[in-house]
Amino acid sequence: MKRKSKYNVVVVGVGVVGIEMLRVLRQRNFPVGDLRVLARSTREITVDGEKYSVKAISPEAFDGMDIALFAGTEGEKGAAVIYAPEAVKRGCVVIDNGADFRMDPKVPLVVPEVNAADVKKHKGIIANPNCSTIQMVVALYPIHRRARIKRIVVTTFQSVSGAGQKKVNELWEQSGAFLAKKPIKPVEFPYQIAFNLIPQIDVFMDNGYTKEEMKMVNETRKIMGDDSIKVNATCVRVPVFYAHSESVNIETEKYISANEVRELLLKAPGVRLVDDPMNRSYPMPINAEGKDDTFVGRIRRDDSVKNGISMWVVADNIRKGAALNAIQIAELL
Amino acid sequence: MKRKSKYNVVVVGVGVVGIEMLRVLRQRNFPVGDLRVLARSTREITVDGEKYSVKAISPEAFDGMDIALFAGTEGEKGAAVIYAPEAVKRGCVVIDNGADFRMDPKVPLVVPEVNAADVKKHKGIIANPNCSTIQMVVALYPIHRRARIKRIVVTTFQSVSGAGQKKVNELWEQSGAFLAKKPIKPVEFPYQIAFNLIPQIDVFMDNGYTKEEMKMVNETRKIMGDDSIKVNATCVRVPVFYAHSESVNIETEKYISANEVRELLLKAPGVRLVDDPMNRSYPMPINAEGKDDTFVGRIRRDDSVKNGISMWVVADNIRKGAALNAIQIAELL
Repeated sequence: MKRKSKYNVVVVGVGVVGIEMLRVLRQRNFPVGDLRVLARSTREITVDGEKYSVKAISPEAFDGMDIALFAGTEGEKGAAVIYAPEAVKRGCVVIDNGADFRMDPKVPLVVPEVNAADVKKHKGIIANPNCSTIQMVVALYPIHRRARIKRIVVTTFQSVSGAGQKKVNELWEQSGAFLAKKPIKPVEFPYQIAFNLIPQIDVFMDNGYTKEEMKMVNETRKIMGDDSIKVNATCVRVPVFYAHSESVNIETEKYISANEVRELLLKAPGVRLVDDPMNRSYPMPINAEGKDDTFVGRIRRDDSVKNGISMWVVADNIRKGAALNAIQIAELL
Repeated sequence: MKRKSKYNVVVVGVGVVGIEMLRVLRQRNFPVGDLRVLARSTREITVDGEKYSVKAISPEAFDGMDIALFAGTEGEKGAAVIYAPEAVKRGCVVIDNGADFRMDPKVPLVVPEVNAADVKKHKGIIANPNCSTIQMVVALYPIHRRARIKRIVVTTFQSVSGAGQKKVNELWEQSGAFLAKKPIKPVEFPYQIAFNLIPQIDVFMDNGYTKEEMKMVNETRKIMGDDSIKVNATCVRVPVFYAHSESVNIETEKYISANEVRELLLKAPGVRLVDDPMNRSYPMPINAEGKDDTFVGRIRRDDSVKNGISMWVVADNIRKGAALNAIQIAELL
């Protein structure tokens, strides 16, 4: 992208992620020239006291713009599938938070702390990875470079905000009903999520894994640029509002001690080491909420295998897991 | 133990587990002769409409009794350490829910579905395993017998009731305060547990693992009678009231398909198979609460390793995880 002093930016979508994108653009003083906010219908929204007028999306709305940030998830009738090619045709570079283009070999899938250089290969569209994958690769990439990761066994504890604002509201309402001993009628979730766990995120595939679990397998390999990494994932929705947590177990080719992992992560970009268990210091969702870093702790050797390490990784799924990562990609441009 | 038509039973402790023991004794029509309920101080309690008069514990309170069920957890000054030897001296067989005697080579550690025969080796005391271990071995033992399990990587999602009634109350109170946007002051838990996760259960050991995690390593080997099984555990407290859930990944010596695992577990004692993901059927805490079975689902091959299987295991930690298992041991006697 040509170097300019200001860039005209379009944000498509005003759900949890779209709103966080507007917030992050301001917080990071991104050099925004014109700013357009698009959604299905016209309206006014207020984010942190700042008013934005939302315009109805159309191909022409991308005329004269430089960067288009698509906040949606995915879907044949989603904005990205329909409008991303239109935006590219009109000269925009598209950064898509959704899953539609992620595994397309022509589309770079980028986590700036891991594969910033891949941005250069874009042909108009750059994809933002899945939230659970982003925080895991931020924590694992420095270890992979040092000791080569052969296998990852990960179990996620994913907050409801990963599924959108309506799910956030539903956890709130269900919890209130439960405490008031009133019946709970799930609408957005298939089952009660308040004080419960749902071991399903996204739809099931024929192999018994969910689409979310397979994203962690395939996206991890693409971002780390190593198809030989084996990944096994179990993704679980938990009654937490913001931030995803992950229990990550890895097996490396070369020996690496828990202390070496700590030293690597202490200086790793985007990582905050919180690892002093004797003083009850470890990452937790309430401390990661609203933060940019990926928090890593509970690092310990796993002697059940030749070169094993276990750890606990927490990050705000709306910030690093979505909006922040997308805008970091825009900054690379 | 000599065969009798009725047995005199002592229940020591009237916390969550002690009360559930009284409930299970009635529900299973255990042939109770005299029943004594002991605690630190005298009081009256009501369980499911039935009144029990609680007497202060003393060595003499065990005179003339046959079976003593200790409901506590563990501790140098706990009832089991002080009174279990007294009870044995007076002719009782002690079944201890706590951790004090579990790894004693003279004390059998029993899950009836797995190692019922070990009961016979007792010298007065039989130990009830840790809740998270019980449900895991109930689900894994049939697979171990068929295909030999070499390694287990487990991440737990443990409900607050595992830590006692006060913790149950605190999750309730913290959640109410959170929804009312009032400040949360943790008393029982080290941190906020409402809408949060705490990756620590019990104290930390020098190796970076918690005592709870090491229990899963050591108790699993003792119950399954196979010291070669490697176990890596991560134990996490979640804002759920009842039932523990576990994401379990295993590696077996012999090949076993997901369907074979399902067939084995369909006829395994104490297991309820809930595994039809396409119809959103999988185990969840709200469905396991108050039930005797260990619920298993999300069974699938893990191709990230030679012979891998992943699964999701849920059980009521107060029933199968504590009270029920103890009374099943008493039934074996």
